[in-house]
Amino acid sequence: MEYRIEKDTIGEVKVPADKLWGAQTERSRNNFKIGPSASMPLEIIYGFAYLKKAAAYTNAELGVLEEDKKKLIAQVCDEILAGKHDHQFPLVIWQTGSGTQSNMNVNEVIANRVHQIEGNELGKGERKISPNDDVNKSQSSNDTFPTGMHIAIYKKIVEVAIPGIKQLRNRLDEKSKAFKDVVKIGRTHFMDATPLTLGQEFSGYVSQLDHGLNALENTLPHLLELALGGTAVGTGLNTPKGYALKVAEYIAEFTGYPFESAANKFEALAAHDALVETHGALKQLAVALNKIGNDIRMLSSGPRSGIGEITIPANEPGSSIMPGKVNPTQCEALTMVCTQVIGNDVAVTTGGMQGQFELNVFKPVMAANLLESAQLLGDACVSFDENCVAGIEPNQARIDELLKNSLMLVTALNTKIGYYKAAEIANTAHQNGTTLKEEAVRLGYTSEEEFEQWVRPEDMIGN
Amino acid sequence: MEYRIEKDTIGEVKVPADKLWGAQTERSRNNFKIGPSASMPLEIIYGFAYLKKAAAYTNAELGVLEEDKKKLIAQVCDEILAGKHDHQFPLVIWQTGSGTQSNMNVNEVIANRVHQIEGNELGKGERKISPNDDVNKSQSSNDTFPTGMHIAIYKKIVEVAIPGIKQLRNRLDEKSKAFKDVVKIGRTHFMDATPLTLGQEFSGYVSQLDHGLNALENTLPHLLELALGGTAVGTGLNTPKGYALKVAEYIAEFTGYPFESAANKFEALAAHDALVETHGALKQLAVALNKIGNDIRMLSSGPRSGIGEITIPANEPGSSIMPGKVNPTQCEALTMVCTQVIGNDVAVTTGGMQGQFELNVFKPVMAANLLESAQLLGDACVSFDENCVAGIEPNQARIDELLKNSLMLVTALNTKIGYYKAAEIANTAHQNGTTLKEEAVRLGYTSEEEFEQWVRPEDMIGN
Amino acid sequence: MEYRIEKDTIGEVKVPADKLWGAQTERSRNNFKIGPSASMPLEIIYGFAYLKKAAAYTNAELGVLEEDKKKLIAQVCDEILAGKHDHQFPLVIWQTGSGTQSNMNVNEVIANRVHQIEGNELGKGERKISPNDDVNKSQSSNDTFPTGMHIAIYKKIVEVAIPGIKQLRNRLDEKSKAFKDVVKIGRTHFMDATPLTLGQEFSGYVSQLDHGLNALENTLPHLLELALGGTAVGTGLNTPKGYALKVAEYIAEFTGYPFESAANKFEALAAHDALVETHGALKQLAVALNKIGNDIRMLSSGPRSGIGEITIPANEPGSSIMPGKVNPTQCEALTMVCTQVIGNDVAVTTGGMQGQFELNVFKPVMAANLLESAQLLGDACVSFDENCVAGIEPNQARIDELLKNSLMLVTALNTKIGYYKAAEIANTAHQNGTTLKEEAVRLGYTSEEEFEQWVRPEDMIGN
Amino acid sequence: MEYRIEKDTIGEVKVPADKLWGAQTERSRNNFKIGPSASMPLEIIYGFAYLKKAAAYTNAELGVLEEDKKKLIAQVCDEILAGKHDHQFPLVIWQTGSGTQSNMNVNEVIANRVHQIEGNELGKGERKISPNDDVNKSQSSNDTFPTGMHIAIYKKIVEVAIPGIKQLRNRLDEKSKAFKDVVKIGRTHFMDATPLTLGQEFSGYVSQLDHGLNALENTLPHLLELALGGTAVGTGLNTPKGYALKVAEYIAEFTGYPFESAANKFEALAAHDALVETHGALKQLAVALNKIGNDIRMLSSGPRSGIGEITIPANEPGSSIMPGKVNPTQCEALTMVCTQVIGNDVAVTTGGMQGQFELNVFKPVMAANLLESAQLLGDACVSFDENCVAGIEPNQARIDELLKNSLMLVTALNTKIGYYKAAEIANTAHQNGTTLKEEAVRLGYTSEEEFEQWVRPEDMIGN
Repeated sequence: MEYRIEKDTIGEVKVPADKLWGAQTERSRNNFKIGPSASMPLEIIYGFAYLKKAAAYTNAELGVLEEDKKKLIAQVCDEILAGKHDHQFPLVIWQTGSGTQSNMNVNEVIANRVHQIEGNELGKGERKISPNDDVNKSQSSNDTFPTGMHIAIYKKIVEVAIPGIKQLRNRLDEKSKAFKDVVKIGRTHFMDATPLTLGQEFSGYVSQLDHGLNALENTLPHLLELALGGTAVGTGLNTPKGYALKVAEYIAEFTGYPFESAANKFEALAAHDALVETHGALKQLAVALNKIGNDIRMLSSGPRSGIGEITIPANEPGSSIMPGKVNPTQCEALTMVCTQVIGNDVAVTTGGMQGQFELNVFKPVMAANLLESAQLLGDACVSFDENCVAGIEPNQARIDELLKNSLMLVTALNTKIGYYKAAEIANTAHQNGTTLKEEAVRLGYTSEEEFEQWVRPEDMIGN
Repeated sequence: MEYRIEKDTIGEVKVPADKLWGAQTERSRNNFKIGPSASMPLEIIYGFAYLKKAAAYTNAELGVLEEDKKKLIAQVCDEILAGKHDHQFPLVIWQTGSGTQSNMNVNEVIANRVHQIEGNELGKGERKISPNDDVNKSQSSNDTFPTGMHIAIYKKIVEVAIPGIKQLRNRLDEKSKAFKDVVKIGRTHFMDATPLTLGQEFSGYVSQLDHGLNALENTLPHLLELALGGTAVGTGLNTPKGYALKVAEYIAEFTGYPFESAANKFEALAAHDALVETHGALKQLAVALNKIGNDIRMLSSGPRSGIGEITIPANEPGSSIMPGKVNPTQCEALTMVCTQVIGNDVAVTTGGMQGQFELNVFKPVMAANLLESAQLLGDACVSFDENCVAGIEPNQARIDELLKNSLMLVTALNTKIGYYKAAEIANTAHQNGTTLKEEAVRLGYTSEEEFEQWVRPEDMIGN
Repeated sequence: MEYRIEKDTIGEVKVPADKLWGAQTERSRNNFKIGPSASMPLEIIYGFAYLKKAAAYTNAELGVLEEDKKKLIAQVCDEILAGKHDHQFPLVIWQTGSGTQSNMNVNEVIANRVHQIEGNELGKGERKISPNDDVNKSQSSNDTFPTGMHIAIYKKIVEVAIPGIKQLRNRLDEKSKAFKDVVKIGRTHFMDATPLTLGQEFSGYVSQLDHGLNALENTLPHLLELALGGTAVGTGLNTPKGYALKVAEYIAEFTGYPFESAANKFEALAAHDALVETHGALKQLAVALNKIGNDIRMLSSGPRSGIGEITIPANEPGSSIMPGKVNPTQCEALTMVCTQVIGNDVAVTTGGMQGQFELNVFKPVMAANLLESAQLLGDACVSFDENCVAGIEPNQARIDELLKNSLMLVTALNTKIGYYKAAEIANTAHQNGTTLKEEAVRLGYTSEEEFEQWVRPEDMIGN
Repeated sequence: MEYRIEKDTIGEVKVPADKLWGAQTERSRNNFKIGPSASMPLEIIYGFAYLKKAAAYTNAELGVLEEDKKKLIAQVCDEILAGKHDHQFPLVIWQTGSGTQSNMNVNEVIANRVHQIEGNELGKGERKISPNDDVNKSQSSNDTFPTGMHIAIYKKIVEVAIPGIKQLRNRLDEKSKAFKDVVKIGRTHFMDATPLTLGQEFSGYVSQLDHGLNALENTLPHLLELALGGTAVGTGLNTPKGYALKVAEYIAEFTGYPFESAANKFEALAAHDALVETHGALKQLAVALNKIGNDIRMLSSGPRSGIGEITIPANEPGSSIMPGKVNPTQCEALTMVCTQVIGNDVAVTTGGMQGQFELNVFKPVMAANLLESAQLLGDACVSFDENCVAGIEPNQARIDELLKNSLMLVTALNTKIGYYKAAEIANTAHQNGTTLKEEAVRLGYTSEEEFEQWVRPEDMIGN
């Protein structure tokens, strides 16, 4: 491979000749060979592109950056956002915990790309733009990385997670309405219970997702607060007057989302409770989705030895050894995603609790877990919706058979003959393998007519 | 011990003669010898007392319970709430996961206590009030237990957790203002960084707690939703028309809190995402408090070989072997509480994710963890406030000494001479053990006057 | 209440006149009002009693403690171990993270109780024995607390957790053998699969517990390592030569367990990976037991609309509203315990990861969680065994019915006619609601005789 | 893109013409668009290659597979293991939870690659080898996937995790020995304590890693147990006699590791406690490494306002805004990895606890988390060793200065003048800002000579 020489404050470094990055990126590549390369999420790089452009605009507007430098920096940021330099960001999550090296990676790529745009060869001649003094002007890794990660995460939540979850929520709601007259046996403690409709059962799922979405949306204002303008320790050292508010406005403009300057920059650097908060809501949704996925898995179980009250689409052969088997594979993918999100929540918590003094240095691991969770939940909900829920149908014959035989219909007699006599009927029918009606009449607690009038599943499903 | 005979639908049970509980409670005592006895939190029993009274009022109002029964039930509920029967609830958390046995414990105690009030001897004569048909009328364990736990948890959050955290938040805010002019060295990556004020440092803690309290308050509406009226599976079977709304109104009236009937009772029985949501916010606060406690521990470290920028009260001899030692014991208690809360969050999550069909049967474990976390956080914040934060004072001499010597003041030169020359000054001073000024002048990058004008800690702490 | 005055190095404190504890205990009571009082597990106090006695013996043998002082200290330790002073230890978990205050609580109680034994009144006259200079001789909280907690935890593991789990394991093994000929349908993905015996199914549970017990036993050697002799920072300052080894021998003798002096005392004070390790094994067992409990819950589901292949004992009325219902309450208690243990594991981890320099100050919270998990698992296994597993019986009629109808028996044809044709048979039978044999013959893939010879559930359960 | 048609039991599918995979792989690609493509770890695919080859050998040896088919299958397996087909495995973790689709992906690639080897064009002509009937012969996804994941994980543990951790352990041990005479102040509760040597401090780290490695090695026997031979539900249906033992022998031979056939195949399919167990040990190591990384971060803090007792290599410019700053970046990467591993542990636990009946369907998520944790820990330890620990040097001047001034040296006087007088000396010196000696003499508790003889740090570091 061919190399060129790049320098930083420590000295010279050999960098692959065709790469836009510089000395500090290359040092990081060599010093942190941990896990797969380039694991730092690209979404965060894009977050940086937004903020570098916003900083350049603000710096220019406040008179500390020349107009032409601003334009060049912005031009490269736009190129990055257009996906033209995705391979110029080779660093890993497992670097310095402030993300300094990814900040410098972006600074170096912008400075070198400007050098190219200006018609120069990489590594030759004086650069018009300095990674530190120009691209990073009025900034520190300590405020840029959290800003980049807030932008990336906010976008992922509102563009992937929420729409995916909503799509599933809406389909479940549609099914709930479609199944509103399908009376079926209920189950509590996994045991036969009194009836409800399949629509009611599904309405519980909808309500879980509604509450979960509401909880997630409650966390967004914290996420909209940006650290930028705090620089090294939160005081805003080396920023021009008015910078923090202005740069947040530009970020809001460029992203189209209502980002704001964090009222307290000390928190914004030293703690990432905003991420803990948002991931907490994702975890709540994972808890909900795990319940939903597991229920649907069990409701569709069978075909002959399970519960079998619904059918789900047969998307693929289920077994490599058992011919003709159809499995609830979408439920499995979904609940595995939930499992991952529940684990990620502990990673985010563990990172969040360990900040020290003016800086939390678990930023990359926290951000990466959040981005993963949001992506997986959004994708899994879409997949679960389209490949499973959309095709759910009640298995009416099975539902009717189970309902008809249920002993728990006896509950309707509580208000007529009292709990103890009703229990005696149920217990006797269970022991004798008979029906409730037979025993109710035999024990002399109801007449046949009374039984038929009082014990009607369709009257037991609510006011 | 003396016993009397009590009966349930299964048969006869010997119950200690002087106890108010009945057959089902006694069965549970015998069948679940797991951990210390009576571990079911009393707060949940009190939650039951509120709801049993509300149910009696509602049943009477809707014409399904006689007025005198209502009064007797309400009278016993009031006795329970006055703490007169605390020893009548011997059951453990580790019982049936719907809390059925604690519901029956309350039903039995009320029925038997009414029997006493009516002038009878326990176990003798016909009871006026039936545990199932009267006390439990229009109810099921499946809707009473979640209602009782929501009442208990909501009260704990607003009466213990929030006031405790706010008390600490307010003291930190007071300290932040008192320390607003104490300029000190900042630390990022646990390394010397640019200055800020001690007041700014503390303001970050305040902001963390403000965000945490806000997050916690965001969860309260979900917690205010009550399952009562859903009965066995959420359909409200065996409840009179209008019951669910009315009974929630009575609970709101009796507790003084704005409880409401859950819009979707199927969720309210089958999922406890509301608890997951609220505990998630407690966990976020634990993350924040862990950071704060750890910072204060480290800021007060020494007395001679640590950081030592603040002093904390010496509340007790610190060491059984090292005389004269003072330890940050309140920080340790607080961070241990945070540790417990972070663990409890996983317990709540693990319980929450495992609901099946119409019922989540991890109610007691979820509720107990939430109550513990809320109590511990509230108490620990008060203890930390009163025994530690209230007495924090800056160690001005130490602060000044560290600030004066800091190499990171060089950052102020970035905007004057550029990042690279500033770095050279800092590196040289570090290697030579000299001051920044000496090296700045020696390297010819600033004059002495310029250095003194440009590098002033008091100018580096924000606009 | 009456008080007497006690002193420590900070000054005077009013202590309840009838209590054996002294100034430092009382300070801690006042300074740490966090959660219920006396939450510090008594098992740890007993661990202290063993080690205080062992230290007295060792100090006397090595010539640094008078023989009569040794005897008096040992006498009180024996009283503590006999449960005579359980109410003299009022402190909470949430104190200093080294447990210093509980160490001093023990020291003070011993010194004051000796004073009583010697015929004196508490608070009057010179004490023969000093809490610090005599009872705590050659010790520090930093080595006594971890020693006390290792003793307590080891005993809890081998006396409660392991026997309880083994009792359950043995019953499951007994059932596995009893059910060895009960051929039933298997289920994978919760879907019908090829047959196995109920005995085989249960043998998997036995194997899980065997592996879990083995994992737990693997952790015991680490737990047997004692910190005592390390004193303040691990160097053994202020201990006589030979002390560490000797005191461990005495502890081994007094407890009857093979405790040893930790080879590295610096680890033994600064890290509690031994607790992380042991709790990790408890968590593995919780994972196993959760699976077992959930399976049994589901296998016994019904009575008419579930799986219903086994019956479990009906220990109590299952529902306060649905008469005659029997619920898998022991499964619920067990899986709730698993939930708690899984949460506790994160608490232990979170405490364990936060040691700093020469001391981990999350000792009480780590120890308390471990003791709770071990107790709950042991108790829950016994309860689950005696109240559930012991009474499990196969529901032969149901098992036979499900087996006979299963489509997955077709798998036996793979090796005869190939996977694809077998799949066609199964799919066709599923669509037509017919039997495999009907379709196999109709499709011309087997003769009736071949089918009957090839597809025999009893031949499909293993070599 | 060009396509060809492939078929499975459900019907026809269009597959990219140049890809070796078949219908089921393509279905899975389309049905599970969750997260980045090809996330299923390649290590598991390689595990499959080992087992498919071993199965072919065993099937041939036991007379159920033709010799030439065996050779062809084995040839392709060797190609896969040589990395020649890495791009033929496009599936994601988030598929069916048994990993059926990845099993079929391997089966299809092998069958199609054999077709190529035999000189045919993909999709044209009859294939000599059937994915199901030949490549998958005597197998099920249910036993192959867990076998493949055990192979992959065992290799990762012994080839990456253990060597990496050992390398770090050995360097810490080397440093411990090199620093054995560097006497320094100890710190407990983050407060000054009695002295120890820097070598002793590091020896604690070594002991933690030794115990952690021992714990990890204790888990390997469970991991060496292979499910293969259990087929669909653990009974070994459709396997020839002797198959399970033989195939494990071949796997042992091909991999060079002592794999064995699991004694209980029902556990091996239905539970993955082996993964829970191994990850538990990785988590313990993460706890240890987090402590070590954090200690080294703090010991190296400064350069002028921290603890500063050691220096670490300056690998890169530390700050994009603060010139000349050097940060403990390797500590940060390491502790972020620990954070991830601690989170992954909960994911593995959450997956492990949710098995149902004969199958745990959280296999891919469990395996992926384990592989990630093992890789990250191994890599991070190497990086931390080579880029940080190897270059650690004591900062002798700073160490001496802090030691000399320490008040905790007073502890040496306990055994001479008693705890209370020693405490008085320390407290007075602290209040007056004087030295211990000055106060000891002034208070008349020691002569100057006695003080100098009794209080010698070098005598306080152990017997």
